[in-house]
Amino acid sequence: MSTPSHSRRSLLKSIAGSALLAALPKVSAAATAAFDARAIKVLAFDFQGSCVDYTSPLMAMGAQINKDKKLDIDWSVMSSDWRDAYHEIMVPVLAHRQPYIPTEKVYRQALDIILDRHHLSDRFSVAERDEMSGVWGRMVPWPDTREGLSRLKTRFTLVTLSNSGMATVMKMVKANALPFDEVLTGELAQNYKPAPEVYGLVPQMTGVRRDEVLFCATHFYDLKDAKAFGFSTAWWPRPLELGPGHKIDTDPKPFVDVYAADLIDLAVKLGA
Amino acid sequence: MSTPSHSRRSLLKSIAGSALLAALPKVSAAATAAFDARAIKVLAFDFQGSCVDYTSPLMAMGAQINKDKKLDIDWSVMSSDWRDAYHEIMVPVLAHRQPYIPTEKVYRQALDIILDRHHLSDRFSVAERDEMSGVWGRMVPWPDTREGLSRLKTRFTLVTLSNSGMATVMKMVKANALPFDEVLTGELAQNYKPAPEVYGLVPQMTGVRRDEVLFCATHFYDLKDAKAFGFSTAWWPRPLELGPGHKIDTDPKPFVDVYAADLIDLAVKLGA
Repeated sequence: MSTPSHSRRSLLKSIAGSALLAALPKVSAAATAAFDARAIKVLAFDFQGSCVDYTSPLMAMGAQINKDKKLDIDWSVMSSDWRDAYHEIMVPVLAHRQPYIPTEKVYRQALDIILDRHHLSDRFSVAERDEMSGVWGRMVPWPDTREGLSRLKTRFTLVTLSNSGMATVMKMVKANALPFDEVLTGELAQNYKPAPEVYGLVPQMTGVRRDEVLFCATHFYDLKDAKAFGFSTAWWPRPLELGPGHKIDTDPKPFVDVYAADLIDLAVKLGA
Repeated sequence: MSTPSHSRRSLLKSIAGSALLAALPKVSAAATAAFDARAIKVLAFDFQGSCVDYTSPLMAMGAQINKDKKLDIDWSVMSSDWRDAYHEIMVPVLAHRQPYIPTEKVYRQALDIILDRHHLSDRFSVAERDEMSGVWGRMVPWPDTREGLSRLKTRFTLVTLSNSGMATVMKMVKANALPFDEVLTGELAQNYKPAPEVYGLVPQMTGVRRDEVLFCATHFYDLKDAKAFGFSTAWWPRPLELGPGHKIDTDPKPFVDVYAADLIDLAVKLGA
């Protein structure tokens, strides 16, 4: 757990040097034999959580709101509830019982739901809610992201494959000078991962075969579906994705080909 | 006109220093008053011809084919006929009497047509034709393109807006390290410029308004339609687009906001 004097970067550093990295799964001999980085042409990255940190901007925004409005909201609870409400709205969309809704609208609707549940509806105007919901478009890169991508770019074509909207991801990529070759998101297929149409955007738009794509993410559920689609897969931990104090799963998985400590380490592991 | 000893670069240089640049239209006082670069957030570039040279790779390929097959084909005529056959195939597609066909297939069909017209059908196998048609995916940047885009990127979001396919443009952008923030092509709308759905990809995918987009191209017909759609427009000449010896139109046009000598000059004119 962090103390108030711990900066985000120093906390990450202390985690990186500690038990978590030692506990990382080693690539098994079987996986090493099956996976050949030389066959890979395109790296497709999950974005939210994997490449960028959404919790830090949300917590900073929450602290400012508490100060400005003299409130005592626990924003780690709000953050969790907000994501839960997002997933509730998405259930019928993912089951195709409702048409595609842009992610940005889902987060905005979810905010109304959680403010209501927390009896805070009368404290936030529509304009304030619009501004708050924009926090999902103000994520910041993890400390290793830009350097790791820059190294990987020398050897591979790098694309995002996000469930967020095109404009939202493009703006974060530009604002943070992340060296992606192309932004791809579910918006182009009017669908969401794990729909095959969304994973299929990568070979379609880059002109490579599925087995030439390495799908890269910190979320095992995404990697499992990407592997089933025919991609190879790479994983690294983001222990602070939900903020400090969350235990993360580092057990080896049969659908992960490459395990890395972060994106710089992924570049090393792929020879870039 | 060039002599055989003229390299492509020195030819461009001699043109750049000569009468053509002196003949460039000056921005009129009215246009200067109406156009404000500070309102622009996104630069959308036509790609083929505007950013890259397709004639040089085609002529080089033709020379090699003549040598290998002991033929005496005039490849400047073939190049012109190939583009004409392309446009013939496209007439019913653009009129929406036929469904969308990827550009790559149109060029491949057009090649069969021109080889037949030139009584060369029996000299080229299917595999050879496939390889030849790929020349439309092996274009090379003009000498000013990479530097101009690099400077413009510091101030603006740069996207392509091409009628070629996504994978084709992405591969050329990556192979030549052109610093676009995003590749957009008509394939995403399953349509071609000048369809409004294609110009509309720029504000949709980047999240800006039409009047925040500067559409940049060397072809007046494209600029005219882009201006009608609601974009501002920038033009520069590519006097060697069709090879040496072609006269180009440098007369001022009411639908052009910014005139530049090339992409480096465009960066200067836009303060980047």
